[in-house]
Parts: sequence; structure tokens; C-alpha cells
Amino acid sequence: MSSKVRIALDAMGGDHGPSVVIPGAAEALARHADIEFLLFGDQSVIAPLLDAHPALKDCARIVHTDVAVTMDDKPSQALRRTRRASSMWMAIESVKNGEADVVVSAGNTGALMAMSTICLRTMAGVDRPAIAAMWPTLRGRSIVLDVGATIGADAQHLVDLAIMGSAMARIVLAISCPTVGLLNVGVEEIKGIEEVKAAGRTLREGQIGGLDYKGFVEGDDIGKGTVDVVVTEGFTGNIALKTAEGTAKQLAEVLREGMSSSLLTKIGYLFARSAFRSLKEKMDPRNVNGGVFLGLDGIVIKSHGGTDATGFGNAIGIGFDMVRHELLGKIRTSLAESDDRRIALTAEMDARA
Amino acid sequence: MSSKVRIALDAMGGDHGPSVVIPGAAEALARHADIEFLLFGDQSVIAPLLDAHPALKDCARIVHTDVAVTMDDKPSQALRRTRRASSMWMAIESVKNGEADVVVSAGNTGALMAMSTICLRTMAGVDRPAIAAMWPTLRGRSIVLDVGATIGADAQHLVDLAIMGSAMARIVLAISCPTVGLLNVGVEEIKGIEEVKAAGRTLREGQIGGLDYKGFVEGDDIGKGTVDVVVTEGFTGNIALKTAEGTAKQLAEVLREGMSSSLLTKIGYLFARSAFRSLKEKMDPRNVNGGVFLGLDGIVIKSHGGTDATGFGNAIGIGFDMVRHELLGKIRTSLAESDDRRIALTAEMDARA
Repeated sequence: MSSKVRIALDAMGGDHGPSVVIPGAAEALARHADIEFLLFGDQSVIAPLLDAHPALKDCARIVHTDVAVTMDDKPSQALRRTRRASSMWMAIESVKNGEADVVVSAGNTGALMAMSTICLRTMAGVDRPAIAAMWPTLRGRSIVLDVGATIGADAQHLVDLAIMGSAMARIVLAISCPTVGLLNVGVEEIKGIEEVKAAGRTLREGQIGGLDYKGFVEGDDIGKGTVDVVVTEGFTGNIALKTAEGTAKQLAEVLREGMSSSLLTKIGYLFARSAFRSLKEKMDPRNVNGGVFLGLDGIVIKSHGGTDATGFGNAIGIGFDMVRHELLGKIRTSLAESDDRRIALTAEMDARA
Repeated sequence: MSSKVRIALDAMGGDHGPSVVIPGAAEALARHADIEFLLFGDQSVIAPLLDAHPALKDCARIVHTDVAVTMDDKPSQALRRTRRASSMWMAIESVKNGEADVVVSAGNTGALMAMSTICLRTMAGVDRPAIAAMWPTLRGRSIVLDVGATIGADAQHLVDLAIMGSAMARIVLAISCPTVGLLNVGVEEIKGIEEVKAAGRTLREGQIGGLDYKGFVEGDDIGKGTVDVVVTEGFTGNIALKTAEGTAKQLAEVLREGMSSSLLTKIGYLFARSAFRSLKEKMDPRNVNGGVFLGLDGIVIKSHGGTDATGFGNAIGIGFDMVRHELLGKIRTSLAESDDRRIALTAEMDARA
């Protein structure tokens, strides 16, 4: 690894493309001086935007392509039409080729996952990738995974998710031994689906290093921040994430209507503005922007498609931290340790038999 | 059916037992005059409470038992310890015996589901029960099922859920042909798990009467009120429901903290009180209290355990409506029609082959 973190950006990704990506990169650079950028996309659009950010221009190189994945492309369409040629694919490939340490894209999630999996492949010992999201909670932030990469999970995959999520939590939350819970429909050991129960047994008995398994958690524990890492398979995780987003929007909408309903409430709003500002800040999706693809042989960060420069800058910041604190190395070590323990446990059981 | 609706109450159920159940029954009676109550529980506790509500006392009969299911009992414990003898069991059994038309309990959900299934059994043609919840949305209210009765569902069970949820929606929402969506991780037809895709095909092609199938919906569509009936299996449904509850509590907590943080925000709160009151009212869980157990050969309403008299009265009101508008008859007719259509479709396919 070079002394600088080399970050590849899919400059054409997201609802706003380079007009958000370039100022976002400038914001990230202001916070982390030791970055080099590779910008993949349309030179004629990117270059003029770069002129407004001289510090960024000095440490960025544009790699031109006029092919881009659109937000509506189905993953299969994106692959057929733009594989090898699109800004998204080329940015991912630069990680594979060792030219960059991490790729950040605000593009189409399905296409990014499909291209990342095909180009980078899964890490040895992990059969399927996952998306880890950061979730604002009453205690701060938690990590929830998988929020939609893979549908369904056997017990082993759930254990792998716990290990990978914990490695990420050690970096993002700066906690040496994060607490982990398995999302379930009750906290008693007999509850839930077989895969979740079996994963619970392994996590309880396996004494897996680097995480503190707390048992089952329920849906309302996510917002409470009961544990640092919430593990579930991608179907349920995606629905939980979107349901929470929907509920937050719904409450905001009802409150907004109420606040503008009369002169009195409007005056009240003015007096209480700081409270609303604090609510907005605590629940600001930009602060938790940057879903991390885990289980791949390379680091891929997915920014929300509709975010602004600050949000995209935060996603770059997540990518920076993941490289600086060696996410992949931490995951590999944890997985290997877990394998060793599993082998030792099997040997013990054989010896007893 | 007698001209009055006969409602059996598990008077000992819930966090507060008869002290909420009895005034709740009085509230329901004030709204619906034509009710007769059967009150199952401890006579020495119920009788003095009844004295405070003479109108209720006139149309209620106490059936004494001093055995009660506790909120902590596991379903298996409750069955072993209190089957046949507890207020919960006896109230359910009165529906089976034809002494009551519907049972309402605020007791332990797992025990209520287990006892209801054993005592009432599932309806002909339905293999497993479901719990339908009412969900406050931006458009009003929707019905979401299953929120935790059964884990996992094949395509046929999901179709049955759509049929049963629509029958309930026709009554509760007073819509002649409710819109229905299948909860999924995307709205495209190729997305999601096999069972959900297969159920989508049947609902699209089956031309099932009494419902208007709209395709897949995502987690954030629930709060938007995109459809009247949201169908999912019990594991995901339970986690979605609890995640939404957790998010609502989290936002309320952050807002409360913000509002009491300074003199200015406190003054603002006073001015804007009506907006907060409207938010509270729109999201008041008491207004949507009353989960309906569907798929059983009898009507069982589950009230929240911690609700107050108004909330419990609302749950009784749901039960009243379900009887008055013949929920079970509507479900039986819809299921039979759906079976007929399935047979006709198979015959058509055979004829073509």
C-alpha cells in the first residue's frame, strides 16, 4: 500500500453524477489530506468541475470514458451493455488491478453489486457478498447487515456476517470488541427460523474472537442501539431498512403538516427551531451515508444515489477509514481464526466420541 | 347469530388485567349498544370493578376462574399449566362452543395463538393461522399480515394471506375492493424469493375476486400507504412491524430531548402544542389496537398488552365489526371462489394440452 490512500470514484454514478461527486471528493480531501483520486467518467464534464477545486485537481487523475450505467439499468442490462467500458466497471477494475485501494460509487446498487462480484470475486472462505449499512440509533450508530445483497442465508453465512460486521464495527465505531445480535422474532433461544437458531448456537459456543455475542434481538432493538452489529439475511434486512426509512419520512411529513397548520404552530416552530435542527442532524442520512460491500476481494463503498456533496464526501471518508484500518486484513484474520476454532472444536468432539 | 354480538373477554389478560379490561368494555359498549359480554376471570376482582359501570354490568356475565396465563409464560408452559382452566382458554372455548361470537384478549401473544389454534383449529382449506395488524399510514390505515403467527410461507399461503387480509380490509377500511401488495426487496417481477414471485404470478393471473393486486411493494411503501393490504410471511412481517415501532419511538425520544433542551424550545413547544397533539393522535397506537388472528375457525382479537381502556375498547370494537360484517363468511366465500378459479384454470390448461 502506498502511503496515500488511492480512491477510485465512479464519477458518473448517482442521481447528480460529477456535480456531486467532484465537490464531494473535495470535501473528503479537506478532511483527509493523504488521498489520491482516480476519477472515472466523462473528461469533458469532470475537467471543468475540477478547475473549481485546485487542491483536488492536484491529486486527481481523470480516466476518460463516455459509457455510464444509468440508475434504471437492470444489473443484467448494465453488465451486457457497459461491462469493461463504463465508469462503474472501470473504477471497480482499478481496485482489482491494484491501481486503487477502494472504489466509491453512488450508482445503481444492483449493477454495482453485480459488477463488483464478477470483477473482484468473493473473498476466500466467503460464499456470498453482503451490504452493511450504518443505522442511526438512540446510542449513536450501529451496523446492520445484510441489507439486500443476498436473499436467504444458512447458519454459516450468518456467522460470517457477524464476523465481517464486527471487523467493520471495530473500524467505524472504534470499539475493540463490538456487541453482536442476531435479528429474530423473539429473544428466547427456541424462537425463530432454524438457520438463525443454529447460527446463535455457533456464535454462543464458538467463542469467536473480536466480537461479543449478545443473543437474539428484535426489530425495535435496532433503533434502541441494543447492540453494535445487527445480523440478518438480506431479504429481511432490506425490508427492515426500508420500513424504518418509510416510518421516519412518514413522521417527518405528519410533523411538517402540523407545524405549518396555523400561525401559532408556525411561531412555535421558530422558537423550537434548534430542537428540529438537532432531530434533523441526528437522523441525517448523510451522516450514515456509505454502505460497505463485505465479503468481496476488494473494498466497495455504495453511496446513496440522491445524496449531496457532503453525503458523498462521508461515503469517501468511510472508504478511507476501511483502507487505513485494513478492513480486508481484519476480516481475513477473523475468518481464519474462526475456522481454526471450528476445526479444534470438531477435533475435541471426535476425541470425546 | 343472536341479534346482539356476544363478546368473550379474557379479563385477566394484559399488563393491567381487569383494571383496563372492564373500563375498556364499558367504552366499547358506549359506542356499540348491542353487545353482550362474557367476562372470564377472577370474580372477586371483576365484580367490584363492574359496579362502577352499571350499563356494562347489565349486559355482562362473569365466568369465574382463578387461573390465568402470565405475560411471561412460554406458550408450551401456558398450555401445560392452564389449558382448560385459565381465563384465556375458557374465553376461547366459549367461541368454540358457540356461547360467544368473538374473543378479545390482551394476554401473552404466543399463548393466545397456541391456545386459539389448538382450541378453534384452522379453517378448512387454510393450513396455518396469521396475525393481521393495522398500520397507520400517510393515507390513513393499512393492514399488514402476517406479523408473526407463522414463520415462512409457501406461495399458496401468501395467496391465502392476500385473500384473508382483503376480507378484513373490506370490513375495517370499508373498501369494496382493497388494493394488495406483496412485500419484497424490489418492485420488478424478477426480484425476491421464489415463494413471493410465485404468489405474485398467481395473484396476477388468478383474477381473484374482492381484491385488486398491485404487484410488489417495498418496506417504505407500508408507511406511505401505497396499498390497503401488505402481504408477507410472519418472520419478515414481525421484524418490519417492530422496526417501525422502534423507529417511531426513537424519533419521539430525540424530539422530546430537543424540545426540553432550552427555554426557547420549551416556549416553542407550548406554541406548537397542537402540531404535536396531531402527530401523537395520528400515530397513536391505541387507534390501531387490535391484531386479528386470521385463518382460524373463530374470531380472535389480540389487544396490545400494555394498552389502556381506550385502546382495549378499540380492540373490542374491531371484534364487534368482524362479527357484524361476517369476517369468517367473507373469508370462506373468497377462499372457495379462489379454489373454483384455480380448478377452472387447471382444466383450461389441461384442455389446451
